[in-house]
Amino acid sequence: MTEARNPAEAGPSSKGAGTTRLAPTYEGDFVLDEDLALECGSTLSGVTLHYAVYGRLNAARDNAVLVCHALSGSALVGEWWPEIFAPGAVLSLEHDYAICINLLGSCYGSTGPGSVNPATGSPYGPDFPLISIRDNVRAQARLLDSMGIRRLRLVLGGSIGGMQALEWAIHDPARVERALVIGVAPLGAMGLALNHLQRQAIINDPEWRGGRYLPHKPPQQGLSLARQIGMISYKSAGLFEERYGRRGNRNGEDPLKMDAECGLLGGRYDIAGYLDYQGRRFNDRFDANAYLAILRTMDTWDPLLGGADPKEVFGRIKARLSFVGISTDWLFPAESVRQFAETIRSAGVQADYREMVSDHGHDAFLAEQAELVRLLQ
Amino acid sequence: MTEARNPAEAGPSSKGAGTTRLAPTYEGDFVLDEDLALECGSTLSGVTLHYAVYGRLNAARDNAVLVCHALSGSALVGEWWPEIFAPGAVLSLEHDYAICINLLGSCYGSTGPGSVNPATGSPYGPDFPLISIRDNVRAQARLLDSMGIRRLRLVLGGSIGGMQALEWAIHDPARVERALVIGVAPLGAMGLALNHLQRQAIINDPEWRGGRYLPHKPPQQGLSLARQIGMISYKSAGLFEERYGRRGNRNGEDPLKMDAECGLLGGRYDIAGYLDYQGRRFNDRFDANAYLAILRTMDTWDPLLGGADPKEVFGRIKARLSFVGISTDWLFPAESVRQFAETIRSAGVQADYREMVSDHGHDAFLAEQAELVRLLQ
Repeated sequence: MTEARNPAEAGPSSKGAGTTRLAPTYEGDFVLDEDLALECGSTLSGVTLHYAVYGRLNAARDNAVLVCHALSGSALVGEWWPEIFAPGAVLSLEHDYAICINLLGSCYGSTGPGSVNPATGSPYGPDFPLISIRDNVRAQARLLDSMGIRRLRLVLGGSIGGMQALEWAIHDPARVERALVIGVAPLGAMGLALNHLQRQAIINDPEWRGGRYLPHKPPQQGLSLARQIGMISYKSAGLFEERYGRRGNRNGEDPLKMDAECGLLGGRYDIAGYLDYQGRRFNDRFDANAYLAILRTMDTWDPLLGGADPKEVFGRIKARLSFVGISTDWLFPAESVRQFAETIRSAGVQADYREMVSDHGHDAFLAEQAELVRLLQ
Repeated sequence: MTEARNPAEAGPSSKGAGTTRLAPTYEGDFVLDEDLALECGSTLSGVTLHYAVYGRLNAARDNAVLVCHALSGSALVGEWWPEIFAPGAVLSLEHDYAICINLLGSCYGSTGPGSVNPATGSPYGPDFPLISIRDNVRAQARLLDSMGIRRLRLVLGGSIGGMQALEWAIHDPARVERALVIGVAPLGAMGLALNHLQRQAIINDPEWRGGRYLPHKPPQQGLSLARQIGMISYKSAGLFEERYGRRGNRNGEDPLKMDAECGLLGGRYDIAGYLDYQGRRFNDRFDANAYLAILRTMDTWDPLLGGADPKEVFGRIKARLSFVGISTDWLFPAESVRQFAETIRSAGVQADYREMVSDHGHDAFLAEQAELVRLLQ
């Protein structure tokens, strides 16, 4: 898969760049007609879900597939996961009706911290409530209800998308035939640590102003650093080594250079140029409070919260489940995914586990789509 | 090994706490009588080395051992590595004369960014030059010369301490009988990435003020975040999982709590409380510019810089070398250390490799000193 490059700085970047991007059949908003009672105890009013569909719903309304996106994704799955639609791959635009719904808390159209709080007339900002994965699934179910979709042939997603896919199978067992859960398990202590670091990077930025930053002065340095901390957990040491090694930044900076301008900082290594570039790009497309909101959604997902009995929680699942671990995933280690699948299988659920061998780390499900497709065939 | 604990927040902390700390025989400063010409091309005048010694130099002056410290260490090796002095361990206070010299760039007594630049009469601050590992070795050699020490029975260190130990064997082959290099190899791309993130955490702090921060207003948030980013690379995911898992912070914070005060942030997990605690503690004992200075020293160490011939660089070594990799080390993976040792052995040097099995990650050489000692026996 070809990756966009910046001539001066390393920029393996936009997912799906170089591959035909698919346009949705329809992209629009769905507004819930009732308030959404959240798991945290708060209520969200006037909830909007931004979504996109690909292909056509058949007369029997039984060809729907729900694709769930990850942290910084959008409803436009045809842009960030195009190869799952390739001929013979996971989805067929001839036969399937693919739906992708933007996460609550995001900045890509669904209700999030940037939305106006009807109670105050101002954007929620830092007062945006904790949205759980389950809350997302319950809101999404209303959209499917409105479409008359009683059955999902498949629900799938990677990372936070996989959290949603599994939560769908738990929460609405009658509706889900199959679920594909990629590169995910409840976040472990190291994952929680990484999210904690990213959160601090944002709130340490003086422009964050307690979450009430000015629209023209967002906490860019903080969001950039947060993204960069994220990036090291999405990729693998092996990939970084192969791509960047100990080379100086490709724009000619020399890490060994010593002059009045560089002082304690000095020229950057190539890996640093790459990370800075990723941080800057992320500022062009994402919002700091939305990032914080979804980090919390991610942090708090734990179907076995409080030591719940796996048989009780997972035993209700009727869908066939497939789990995919990624060999070099550091954020959600393959072994955690395998053990998680095993726990669910032990609860009497049909659940297989496959491992994707890749040096791309967690990101492999986006960076090596063709390999993922082969594994799933 | 007992670790100090904070009742409210997780605080496995000071190395060696619970073990008898040794007082040095002497602790003091050595001022170089000549300028130090640095590898970067700059010159450092009035260079001070702060050092500590343990035991007594014998009449033949052939019982000296040089212990080299890591990033945030000090000359007081008896405080941070006491168990290597235990009866039958690596060093004997009865027979050995142990010397430990604070790194240039540090804030523990040797010349660093907080020292006064004789050329301006003000502290160097961000103008402190890039100090290489070799520069440190050359300065340290002057101190040994002044003591009449022509022979080192052993040079040893972990992490940046290991960089110095190997550099000693390369730079001054006639003086070094044996070198023990623990948990280190030239930093790979992932390590350079982690240092880049830490650097940004500091310079993003508005109190950093381009490196000219006010003495009473240092960039505490930035240094705290830098330390926390460091911490995740010093420890292992397994250790974090075992110690903190997905539990809420031990002071009673609830990550699932949702009220006006927590908003997008919410209660912390235990691992977050632990990291915050480590960040705060670090501010009590370290300086931001010193941290930046030593990160550069660490980044730029590469004996094979520019594709130098290993036979030429390492072939001059006369010391017997021992390398130790740590099984769960993420910053300097055991495999990198093993390969590095292999490269050096291939250059005709006597070099063995041992692996320390520990779930403590990179920090194991400090956190599990008794195990390290056993491995070395």
